[in-house]
Amino acid sequence: MAVRTLITGALVVTMDAADRVIEGGAVLVEGGKIERVGPVSDFAQLDQVRLETVNASGHILMPGLVNGHTHMGDSLFRGLVEDLPLEPWLERLWVSERQFLSYDTVRLGADLAIAEMIRGGITSALDMFWFPEAAADAAISAGFRLSTGPIMFDFEGPDGVAAEERPAHGELWLERYSGEPLIHPAVQPHQVLTVAPERIRLARQLANRHGAVFHAHCAETEAEVAGSVARFGRTPLAHLHHLGALDGAAALAHLVHLTDQDFGLLAESGAGALHNPLSNLKLGSGIAEVPRMLDRGIPVAIGTDGAVSSNDLDMWTAIRVAGLLQRGVHQDPLLTPARQTIRMATAGAADAIGLGEVTGRLTAGHRADLVLIDLDRVHLTPAFDPWPLLAYTVGRADVTDVMIEGTWVMRGRKLLTVDPAAAVAGARELGHRIAAHNAAHVAAHSGGADGRSES
Amino acid sequence: MAVRTLITGALVVTMDAADRVIEGGAVLVEGGKIERVGPVSDFAQLDQVRLETVNASGHILMPGLVNGHTHMGDSLFRGLVEDLPLEPWLERLWVSERQFLSYDTVRLGADLAIAEMIRGGITSALDMFWFPEAAADAAISAGFRLSTGPIMFDFEGPDGVAAEERPAHGELWLERYSGEPLIHPAVQPHQVLTVAPERIRLARQLANRHGAVFHAHCAETEAEVAGSVARFGRTPLAHLHHLGALDGAAALAHLVHLTDQDFGLLAESGAGALHNPLSNLKLGSGIAEVPRMLDRGIPVAIGTDGAVSSNDLDMWTAIRVAGLLQRGVHQDPLLTPARQTIRMATAGAADAIGLGEVTGRLTAGHRADLVLIDLDRVHLTPAFDPWPLLAYTVGRADVTDVMIEGTWVMRGRKLLTVDPAAAVAGARELGHRIAAHNAAHVAAHSGGADGRSES
Repeated sequence: MAVRTLITGALVVTMDAADRVIEGGAVLVEGGKIERVGPVSDFAQLDQVRLETVNASGHILMPGLVNGHTHMGDSLFRGLVEDLPLEPWLERLWVSERQFLSYDTVRLGADLAIAEMIRGGITSALDMFWFPEAAADAAISAGFRLSTGPIMFDFEGPDGVAAEERPAHGELWLERYSGEPLIHPAVQPHQVLTVAPERIRLARQLANRHGAVFHAHCAETEAEVAGSVARFGRTPLAHLHHLGALDGAAALAHLVHLTDQDFGLLAESGAGALHNPLSNLKLGSGIAEVPRMLDRGIPVAIGTDGAVSSNDLDMWTAIRVAGLLQRGVHQDPLLTPARQTIRMATAGAADAIGLGEVTGRLTAGHRADLVLIDLDRVHLTPAFDPWPLLAYTVGRADVTDVMIEGTWVMRGRKLLTVDPAAAVAGARELGHRIAAHNAAHVAAHSGGADGRSES
Repeated sequence: MAVRTLITGALVVTMDAADRVIEGGAVLVEGGKIERVGPVSDFAQLDQVRLETVNASGHILMPGLVNGHTHMGDSLFRGLVEDLPLEPWLERLWVSERQFLSYDTVRLGADLAIAEMIRGGITSALDMFWFPEAAADAAISAGFRLSTGPIMFDFEGPDGVAAEERPAHGELWLERYSGEPLIHPAVQPHQVLTVAPERIRLARQLANRHGAVFHAHCAETEAEVAGSVARFGRTPLAHLHHLGALDGAAALAHLVHLTDQDFGLLAESGAGALHNPLSNLKLGSGIAEVPRMLDRGIPVAIGTDGAVSSNDLDMWTAIRVAGLLQRGVHQDPLLTPARQTIRMATAGAADAIGLGEVTGRLTAGHRADLVLIDLDRVHLTPAFDPWPLLAYTVGRADVTDVMIEGTWVMRGRKLLTVDPAAAVAGARELGHRIAAHNAAHVAAHSGGADGRSES
């Protein structure tokens, strides 16, 4: 069995500190880590014993994409509820979630989501959902790198855990998955209006005890900001800051509606910003001020959000839209150049979710999370410059091979560690039941029902 | 040889007047036209003689996408010039265009573009470029439906035709291609600042004599509007209206910056609006008021624009962004619902470019331009509702089969009428020369050159 892998002859996009691109480059992988990166000629003397050599000419070799914010289990409900205002949309969705979510169904949703993400060149994600143990188990089984962990939520959830039990429950979760090389712990209060201040403080303490990242939604909508100001006298970000929630590794999703003071607190705190352009557009939340974040040195990750709101886990589209959106909104074609956008999906994204020393870069010592992209495609021809190709043109079907932690999880577009046919069959069968239940619920509640009771 | 084709068992998305969706539906094609559409049971008694039957279960069957605005030849320059303000960007691009464009290279670019479009489920496009005869010949050869025709431009172009000769030159062009079933004539003045008023009038007359659509850029940037007001005392749209250019079939690309008066003139004229969200974002032009157009009953087509500005010809991404963008900008999740967005890429798009009676709908009498989409995909599972799937999740790699004018041009993802490998090889070879010339030009003009002279 090979113990080292040399991937050679590719156009290597390193995402190192200098954003070095090496034509005719090679990457040597050993023990799950990147051992060396350089031009092919640097590897001429390499010992061939137990060496797997992969000819990657005609391909881009780059770090696997980091999906900065998602809810994998929500793939089960993709497209179920559409074209409603945010509040009735969430109400309808939660009726289905409460009815159908269990360890087994979340595991199915996670299998489906991981299959989709690996296919699209994503090698790690930060996931927030019910039954995070199902997501973690799916990731371990698929060899996928996942940041996840206990969620905090004050209201009744499908897991039956009472709000006051969640901190102790979370403690056990973090102990159980500590030492798993592919699972990176996160403690995840939903947002300031759904989690009491005291439990946000407990979440921060829990995260600090376990070296976990604090992950919450923050300032997604104007209504959330108004609600926080009304209840706490502070914006959601200022409230989190006031509670000490940003004293330690933190990653905040959305950050669409920030005040000047919020920007100052955010930049000081070192917290990462998780930007979900497709979801923010679709739900009518607004458009985050990404150039201002980058100017202030705030680490920014692009995310897909969950498939209920975005409606898939396609990072390439999220990258493309993140890059283009700011230019159109501000009528400035110099904003978010291609290279900067790709950084927000690789090295910068890893920084934003606290994995900057682990993934997102092809440099010696980083874990070997990488992808190959086939350049022999009509829509990728001619290939003058890898940056605009990657930012605006490469799509999920162009990814041919994916390695995570030194192990191939996709070769020649074939998934090796997760069975997509089983995930599709399972989700389709469950989908029939979800659709029937949703139709019955809509019928029962049409014409004046408040939409809050369960069928 | 089969003279009729029955495509059966699909989820048929008709885009007819009722937006009818038929589960277990079938479409009968004969003589290049759609003969009948309905549930499979309607076709039980069908005469089997010389009948090709295609089992399309597990697929969506829908009209081929209509690309409302593109520049096929610009695929040769995809990604060559990036991250510059609009004016120097155009200058740099035009230096390369003048150096390399000829009938042969435009033909190569059109082959590349058509291969990409068919792969992505596009069956017709409105194309504006130099040497439109090269585009028309490529389309005829590939069996692709193309609206194109003579361009009007007052300045020196790569075709060596003087501005005053263009109307007569155009007349010959329109005679030459009249009667070609797949070529739909267009007369195409570039925009009001690059074509003198008198020649815009001649263009309209030429279009009317030949039953052609008048196709121009209009109100793409604030600078164009300001220039038009300064020179003519009118906005670009009012100027076109004043010249009589909208008295007849007309399709105007971009329309990002319209006054209230412009909206009134546009709605009255019946002209189609060609919306290119990706290009408008990338070049910092702004965001067209699409909901307002739709409210006023203006036919709207989504387009990809050329690959220099968008950077590919992927209608699915253009559809997705067109649908999401308005919601985020206006913070209203009820804008541009999925079904309306899909209409802007099919039936509505055909209406906008004057082909509403020809393509864009699966209804008896329309030409048989249709596509099959494989639903057995991880990212398309579960499939609760075809509209959000089509608007937000289906991508170019999900299209398996494409028929144009009753002829299969792609089966099982294999292109039958254009050789993608030859197009890729040709464009790659030319790309090396373009890159070298561009590098020399940049070197010669760096540090204070005005960027306008040719190397």
